[in-house]
Amino acid sequence: MSNKVKIDAITTQEQDFAQWYTDVCRKAELMDYSDVKGFIIYRPYGYAIWENIQKFLDQKFKEKGHENVYMPLVIPTSLFQKEKDHIEGFAPETLVATMGGSQKLEDPLIIRPTSEVLFCDHFAKIVSSHRDLPKLYNQWCSVVRWEKTTRPFLRGSEFLWQEGHTIHESEVEARGHALKMLKVYEDMGKDLLAIPFLTGTKTEKEKFAGAEQTFTIEALMPDGKALQSGTTHYFGQGFAKVFNIQFQDKNNTLQYVHQTSFGVSTRLIGAVIMAHGDDNGLNLPPKVAPIQIVIVPIQQNQPGVLNKAYELEKRLKALGYRIKVDASDKTPGWKFAEYEMKGIPLRLEIGPRDLKAGMISGALRHNHHKISFEDGALEKEVPVILENIHEAMYQKALTYLLNHTTEVHNMEELEDALNNKLGYAKMMWSGDQKDLDVIKDKYQASARALPFNQTLFAKNCLVSGKPAKYVVIVGRAY
Amino acid sequence: MSNKVKIDAITTQEQDFAQWYTDVCRKAELMDYSDVKGFIIYRPYGYAIWENIQKFLDQKFKEKGHENVYMPLVIPTSLFQKEKDHIEGFAPETLVATMGGSQKLEDPLIIRPTSEVLFCDHFAKIVSSHRDLPKLYNQWCSVVRWEKTTRPFLRGSEFLWQEGHTIHESEVEARGHALKMLKVYEDMGKDLLAIPFLTGTKTEKEKFAGAEQTFTIEALMPDGKALQSGTTHYFGQGFAKVFNIQFQDKNNTLQYVHQTSFGVSTRLIGAVIMAHGDDNGLNLPPKVAPIQIVIVPIQQNQPGVLNKAYELEKRLKALGYRIKVDASDKTPGWKFAEYEMKGIPLRLEIGPRDLKAGMISGALRHNHHKISFEDGALEKEVPVILENIHEAMYQKALTYLLNHTTEVHNMEELEDALNNKLGYAKMMWSGDQKDLDVIKDKYQASARALPFNQTLFAKNCLVSGKPAKYVVIVGRAY
Repeated sequence: MSNKVKIDAITTQEQDFAQWYTDVCRKAELMDYSDVKGFIIYRPYGYAIWENIQKFLDQKFKEKGHENVYMPLVIPTSLFQKEKDHIEGFAPETLVATMGGSQKLEDPLIIRPTSEVLFCDHFAKIVSSHRDLPKLYNQWCSVVRWEKTTRPFLRGSEFLWQEGHTIHESEVEARGHALKMLKVYEDMGKDLLAIPFLTGTKTEKEKFAGAEQTFTIEALMPDGKALQSGTTHYFGQGFAKVFNIQFQDKNNTLQYVHQTSFGVSTRLIGAVIMAHGDDNGLNLPPKVAPIQIVIVPIQQNQPGVLNKAYELEKRLKALGYRIKVDASDKTPGWKFAEYEMKGIPLRLEIGPRDLKAGMISGALRHNHHKISFEDGALEKEVPVILENIHEAMYQKALTYLLNHTTEVHNMEELEDALNNKLGYAKMMWSGDQKDLDVIKDKYQASARALPFNQTLFAKNCLVSGKPAKYVVIVGRAY
Repeated sequence: MSNKVKIDAITTQEQDFAQWYTDVCRKAELMDYSDVKGFIIYRPYGYAIWENIQKFLDQKFKEKGHENVYMPLVIPTSLFQKEKDHIEGFAPETLVATMGGSQKLEDPLIIRPTSEVLFCDHFAKIVSSHRDLPKLYNQWCSVVRWEKTTRPFLRGSEFLWQEGHTIHESEVEARGHALKMLKVYEDMGKDLLAIPFLTGTKTEKEKFAGAEQTFTIEALMPDGKALQSGTTHYFGQGFAKVFNIQFQDKNNTLQYVHQTSFGVSTRLIGAVIMAHGDDNGLNLPPKVAPIQIVIVPIQQNQPGVLNKAYELEKRLKALGYRIKVDASDKTPGWKFAEYEMKGIPLRLEIGPRDLKAGMISGALRHNHHKISFEDGALEKEVPVILENIHEAMYQKALTYLLNHTTEVHNMEELEDALNNKLGYAKMMWSGDQKDLDVIKDKYQASARALPFNQTLFAKNCLVSGKPAKYVVIVGRAY
């Protein structure tokens, strides 16, 4: 009897990028499907990536004064309907519980698709004075949005995320906070995932249901599609007025709070898979990799080989690295391919010849370069190697992003940027959504962001010829 | 306008223990109620206790080879019904979603009350050989059990927990694992929560739905009731046969796996509140306290006082402690009472006199003792003080447990142990559930555990006079 989940060859990216993606997800054992469509199983290797993202962000959030809370899984339908834009945005994709303890529920319960209304309801109860502000809360949880088309990590009926919810005394402070958290996300891309993001403001049409302003991080994938990877929102006082979140300010006047929210999800795992992966499989940046170094003993029955492998493991563990020694009876060739496929950034090999020479050899996953250094230099070399891998992966992704962002001045150039260059088109826009709708109809591309640098580079909207108001980045999206 | 959530006096334990408990939960800002009965809001101070429990256990689990996964929130009704005992145990208290994306669901989805069937379904797909075993998985999540009577942390329709699920080649290994994890829980009580547990095996009647054997940790609360605080289970091959979790053993024979599960929940927060709290409020053991040390400046406008407070904070933070400096304009008296109520283990005070003398003074929460030491001794004194607090709190709780566990030989002594001594009765039992039912009817007390030490101390069952088979610990329970 062979393995029930067989590791066949992975479809190449060129053959079928979507199939390549699914193959990698399954064969690297990141996830599996459950019996319910869109509800995936996060297997240990996939969940560990999420744990590393959580650890990174949780620390950043706390450094910036956030506290973790946990709100209920369910929202009474009556409460959910309080904010009109919000309910309109989410109602069509809710999962609703109607039976509890074998009884029909009077007020059916919506499984949270996001928790704004729960936070608002709570904020109204606990805030009364400017001394109570700001409240900087965050929640790690799963949310449910009933989706018709689902793909592992990218779009699911259930996904894991964090949702930050904050309330502030002033608009300036709240807007600043939404931007500050966008910066945290951007830094996470650069420092953890080795992914550069396009950042900017969402257009009116693309912003979050209930928000006054939405900021976004968008990753560009190798198939030319943008992956919206995180958003932060300034809500103004909209929710505050509906939920009556008021405080007495320093002059003893009653004011409504200014509110933000922000979130990233397990979609980031999808971003990492696509941004760095290749036809050999997964390719993980060292800081987010569940296993950073795999040690493969060569001719492991020869005296001293296995002992040395475990010694290296011990020395590297002492430096805090996540390591695996594979001393199974599989061949080195099988192991090399397996750990390539699993995207482990650094492979170290130790065989009788290395042992005799006092050397350690190995290979880097991201560029297949061979390496070799003296045994005694291990503690000095490995940190530098891993740091260099991270930097090289980030620079490669950044170059890709820059090379695939084209300033366009007419429809032909726009089409070329989207269809041939497989990337973003940077164009001048009137500010009228109708003009972007033309692009949507023709090319299935939408406004990804208004970049923060709004230096206009032409006088007229590319589509309508009306006076240009904005620089907008247009692209196809997941 | 005053605070909406007013900090009134806490009901005394003697007046009304249940009300005391609820007062502490609300006034120490551990939780708040939501609009749906039994679904509570974990506020930052309450959630931080859970985070400390998570951090402790997650590390222990990983040290013992467990990997974290995440299974879907929902279970199709058809899948849930596969294991008969299991569905019988949980069906009456399920929350069921029947609508998704505005459509009626053909196979209604049960919001997970526990995830055995999901793990089993997955295990069957990924295991085929003895080389795949053991699988040691754990999941952190929330679960829903529709409860009629709910109390913060102790019994909720939703609660947070971890559920470990493991499969093994042999019965010996699986049973050993269930016991090993019980030891992890026992150690958590001793080393983190300063709570000694009664440990042992559950009777047939009290074991988990679907388990062959259930082990338990039970904390004794000041009102004389036991709080079941965690359980580990040996499932045998019951689930494996229903879900067809088979593997080829070393002799190429197909075998069913042997399975375990184990879990603790946010109920542990309730255990901590009750085990240590007093009429002044919460009383937290240092290792689980969100804030371990509060620094209160006295006459903080006097030169140097605030600077010294922040210097102490910095020095203690460098040692890894969780600290708060309260430099607000509230009076020291208000602050003392507030942080007593919040159960912060150690309070340090620094005023002009201390400053001049080069001394630091303070007080311990758990016994109200005053302390004083030289500024330069801070880094030496604080770790010892906190360690001593933990040890003293544990010893006090242990003495309480021992003093309230009475060996009883007849119904009168049993009644006295339960009603007057407010604790456990240790008695001889025939092994016939009917005999325990008599006690249940008469005293509303049940078998908490068959202790591991089964040295019989009488020949006959206390109730029926039939030959005694077991030592059993009986008590009232939450």
